[in-house]
Amino acid sequence: MTRSINRDTQLCMSLSGRPGNFGTRFQNFLYEALDLNYVYKAFTTRDLPAAIGGIRALGIRGCAVSMPFKEACIALVDSIDDSAQAIASINTIVNNDGHLHAYNTDYIAVRSLIELHNLNADMRLALRGSGGMAKAVACAFRDAGFKHGYIVARNEMTGRKLAETSGLGWVADMSNVQADLLINVTPIGMEGTEKDQLAFEREAVERAKAVFDVVALPPETPLIKLARSLGKPVITGAEVIVLQAVEQFVLYTGVRPNEALIARAASHALG
Amino acid sequence: MTRSINRDTQLCMSLSGRPGNFGTRFQNFLYEALDLNYVYKAFTTRDLPAAIGGIRALGIRGCAVSMPFKEACIALVDSIDDSAQAIASINTIVNNDGHLHAYNTDYIAVRSLIELHNLNADMRLALRGSGGMAKAVACAFRDAGFKHGYIVARNEMTGRKLAETSGLGWVADMSNVQADLLINVTPIGMEGTEKDQLAFEREAVERAKAVFDVVALPPETPLIKLARSLGKPVITGAEVIVLQAVEQFVLYTGVRPNEALIARAASHALG
Repeated sequence: MTRSINRDTQLCMSLSGRPGNFGTRFQNFLYEALDLNYVYKAFTTRDLPAAIGGIRALGIRGCAVSMPFKEACIALVDSIDDSAQAIASINTIVNNDGHLHAYNTDYIAVRSLIELHNLNADMRLALRGSGGMAKAVACAFRDAGFKHGYIVARNEMTGRKLAETSGLGWVADMSNVQADLLINVTPIGMEGTEKDQLAFEREAVERAKAVFDVVALPPETPLIKLARSLGKPVITGAEVIVLQAVEQFVLYTGVRPNEALIARAASHALG
Repeated sequence: MTRSINRDTQLCMSLSGRPGNFGTRFQNFLYEALDLNYVYKAFTTRDLPAAIGGIRALGIRGCAVSMPFKEACIALVDSIDDSAQAIASINTIVNNDGHLHAYNTDYIAVRSLIELHNLNADMRLALRGSGGMAKAVACAFRDAGFKHGYIVARNEMTGRKLAETSGLGWVADMSNVQADLLINVTPIGMEGTEKDQLAFEREAVERAKAVFDVVALPPETPLIKLARSLGKPVITGAEVIVLQAVEQFVLYTGVRPNEALIARAASHALG
């Protein structure tokens, strides 16, 4: 029912190259469950400056920013939160009466998950990927005190740059890497063309102490399935996507839903 | 329920100085009744060019434009329909893949109402008002062949200008005017400060053959009530606002609702 929308309803939105349904379903579910006068809608754009200008001019309350806009948005907002400053990548804009303040809730979510899962900072990391999300994840581990391990990326330029930023080494592949925590921040295992592929080889998973896959759809990637079958502790992309969306929800509405409600919203949005 | 919104949902909106609830309630009611994947939301802005730029950049499907933006929008759209061209005032923008085409559905609605109510073009008009809406109404009567009567407006500059545009005379007040059709296009009788006032004196109403009040809220203004009590045929602002909103709905969705459904949506939106 869109009938409940009135002139006081606040719009929140997302901007991404290829809009998905997760944010829309997750946020709208919570608005309704908590009887908040908000509505959420996904957008894409071919004119990012005009889109951000429109958010400001129309008083759109908040905007989730995804690929490929996470870095280009930085020049278009008015101020940047500490969570996004250090990694020069944003995924959330909050509009306070025309002033756009940007955050990175992926970073915030990964920091929380490191704590929730009691990950030991002495573990040697192998983080596969070197894009915007990889930067948020690598910086979260860096700021949580992780100092050992490698960025694994075929792209030497972005790989070396991220290794430098996060205080890790760079390798093009896993052939000589011994890692305690495997972290996949590539699309490998994601629904679509790379769905059946393993982000790390079986031997690496067998030697690891824990596995973290940022791919959220499907929630159980081949990597996560293999790790579970070997009895390894796992952190899934579903946990990241839900937790970062909760942080966005709190930033937009000022309301923090309880765990049970978050679980219901997540199940609705991922189902 | 905003739960039905997904990535394919189209947003339509309004821009006005003081957003009301009519458009939001009317359009959303029809979207739901007809199971169309649309959602409607009212906005205001302090930066019209950026707001219009945002509509284009975000692919917002349509926008109703109200006071005080009806004329300023003209320079910001890409093309103007005949319905709006002649009167240099728009109230509807349709976004076709980034190309903004503007209409005036107030004009279209008044043209339809002249026909529906079989108003005779020989009638002498007294049209009170000289703002943007008065222009749309006066031009609709002009284009329907009405040639006799006056624009009644205290503001001589806008009054004379509208009189010239519409082929009528101008008078500052009704003292020497004999009119068959009284048309109120001022806020007199509208909810708020001028709620209890009569837009035309009782004597003028008694002498008139019909009365047309563009004020839509309340649907029964003091002028309409008086005219009804005297047995005069009336056209109400509710008819205008509903009919122009139907035209907007058709422009946005390509679907024309039937009369019964329009009546239900109107009752929901005005109730």
